[in-house]
Amino acid sequence: MERQDKDLAFMLQYENVAWFDGGEVRILDRRVYPTKVEFVNCRTHREVTQAIADMVTQSAGPYTAAAMGMALAAHECRDRKAAEQLAYLEDASDDISHARPTTVSRMKIITEGCLAAARRAIEAGESAAQAIMDHTVEANNLRYSKVHAIAKYLVDMFPDDGAVMTQCFGETIVGMMLKECRARGKRIRLFCPETRPYFQGARLTATVCRDMGFDVTVITDNMPATVMQNEVIDVFTSAADAISLDGYVVNKVGTFQIAIVAKYMGVPYFVTGAPDPGHPTIDTVSIEMRDPEFVLQAMGVRTAAAGVKGYYPSFDITPPHLVSGVVTDTGIYAPYDLHRYFRTGDGEFRGLCL
Amino acid sequence: MERQDKDLAFMLQYENVAWFDGGEVRILDRRVYPTKVEFVNCRTHREVTQAIADMVTQSAGPYTAAAMGMALAAHECRDRKAAEQLAYLEDASDDISHARPTTVSRMKIITEGCLAAARRAIEAGESAAQAIMDHTVEANNLRYSKVHAIAKYLVDMFPDDGAVMTQCFGETIVGMMLKECRARGKRIRLFCPETRPYFQGARLTATVCRDMGFDVTVITDNMPATVMQNEVIDVFTSAADAISLDGYVVNKVGTFQIAIVAKYMGVPYFVTGAPDPGHPTIDTVSIEMRDPEFVLQAMGVRTAAAGVKGYYPSFDITPPHLVSGVVTDTGIYAPYDLHRYFRTGDGEFRGLCL
Repeated sequence: MERQDKDLAFMLQYENVAWFDGGEVRILDRRVYPTKVEFVNCRTHREVTQAIADMVTQSAGPYTAAAMGMALAAHECRDRKAAEQLAYLEDASDDISHARPTTVSRMKIITEGCLAAARRAIEAGESAAQAIMDHTVEANNLRYSKVHAIAKYLVDMFPDDGAVMTQCFGETIVGMMLKECRARGKRIRLFCPETRPYFQGARLTATVCRDMGFDVTVITDNMPATVMQNEVIDVFTSAADAISLDGYVVNKVGTFQIAIVAKYMGVPYFVTGAPDPGHPTIDTVSIEMRDPEFVLQAMGVRTAAAGVKGYYPSFDITPPHLVSGVVTDTGIYAPYDLHRYFRTGDGEFRGLCL
Repeated sequence: MERQDKDLAFMLQYENVAWFDGGEVRILDRRVYPTKVEFVNCRTHREVTQAIADMVTQSAGPYTAAAMGMALAAHECRDRKAAEQLAYLEDASDDISHARPTTVSRMKIITEGCLAAARRAIEAGESAAQAIMDHTVEANNLRYSKVHAIAKYLVDMFPDDGAVMTQCFGETIVGMMLKECRARGKRIRLFCPETRPYFQGARLTATVCRDMGFDVTVITDNMPATVMQNEVIDVFTSAADAISLDGYVVNKVGTFQIAIVAKYMGVPYFVTGAPDPGHPTIDTVSIEMRDPEFVLQAMGVRTAAAGVKGYYPSFDITPPHLVSGVVTDTGIYAPYDLHRYFRTGDGEFRGLCL
């Protein structure tokens, strides 16, 4: 499977790396990267669902993994009759899209897109797996062009020489944003909170920034307020796992807290992405609670004594009054005015994770 | 060396454990407790200074360690002439009190108290080391009675059945506060942010709460806002490494951020301790910057890639408008009204760490 846009190859090493290859989907294990470069090999689409649930890949990674899980499902049922293949793929779409409760709406956009491509192929007597892969390359290239548009609007908000605070990984948008900074000659220093409990900020975001040649500093998650007080931070930015049409941002736990601090400090907070029509209001989003044991360890080493409880909401919810702007592929919208996105946008970019 | 107040024995295991014992000061290594119970053995007072600088012991621990360092210094020079002993101990007082820049003022209260006790002993031809130990037992017992008074005022602010968020360790006051809750039959659940990079909240505070029989939950440092939104948190409380007379609170990095969040959420923040006459204004406090490499690891495991920078201010500064009250041994003061403490208090409890 090849990327069509060679210009984007620089991002490959950080990104999905979850390709269907002759009956196997290989997923870079982001839980241990960059300390270790290991892959989880999934031989069935259900193993792909499990890998997504286990957070083997994160940020935008699960979306490509989901598409490749669909390709794998098509491979699994390739010798069955057309109707059976379709039924099998519908079940697979349902299974994969429910891997994590907070992202079901976005996952369905992916898996149902794959399903449609498969349906056309099956009806034409062609390989559904190949059709899903072709569709995914095309969809990813479209996504890159959208993310590039978002990056341009976001970088408009940066000074020529200044500092930006991130939160969690932000996947493609981080690389794209830095590429855009470089193209415009903007000298940006990055401050990346480490993002407990998985350390995505320390392990992933910071590595991307370094590899892109930028000055990057990792801080612990209790430092954003101090850093905003001691250093001049010009912009706080994050991607989102969901943006509801009433302007609430669902993102990695900690985002809400930094947004409160940013508001207190007078630092603008720009969230990148697109409003999610699957979530007309924030009430439709359910926040995934993960195994509380996970916050009682760090990098695999136990921190707390037995008998101490943990608490682990994967995401938190930032209300619109803490959001300075939602940066989309068609411009920056006030969080109270997100319906306008669907009147001005082309409607194809429906809130995919960046 | 025996404690005179047997009733306080319950706290011994969490506390200083840094006793002068025939030419050696043994300090419980809080950097690895409770996963490992190991001691750092110091054979000279300079090794005690180094252990404090290296954060072998934290919170109130360094103050007892400092006193025992002074006893060790007295042991080191015991065969010299009186004047030489005094000069040696003055140098030791200076050395030990400067182990960490942010706490010099408070450390001097300890080491100069030991120096005065030693001076009296030397003039009387008695053992200076023994005099320092006797003085320290007495000072610690006085401290316990003061902390008990603080705990009573603090627990007045707790509901009969509710939840309290802590920050960092808080040493003696945590145990005393919970003892007081138990005595009054108050059912308090504790939420302890883990306190990166050393995890004192996860390792130490939570262990004390568990051992005292309370329901305790550890959260990562990016969760306080989410927890305050999802759970009813009645009070946020912390001790302080310094409280300047103009009402600023210097405490473990992260306190400022939680105080901002608490204000946003309408949760009161009570800081325990006493104003520090060594800091008439916040401008007299210097914030210790520690080795940035330390934030690039967790529990000894590297988190960030090479070439990524770290940033590690030990403490942050919370301004008075975010502080609901300063809880002292003589009552709760508004942070803008701390001079009154010295008019109503007995002046003996000068801002020691709790």
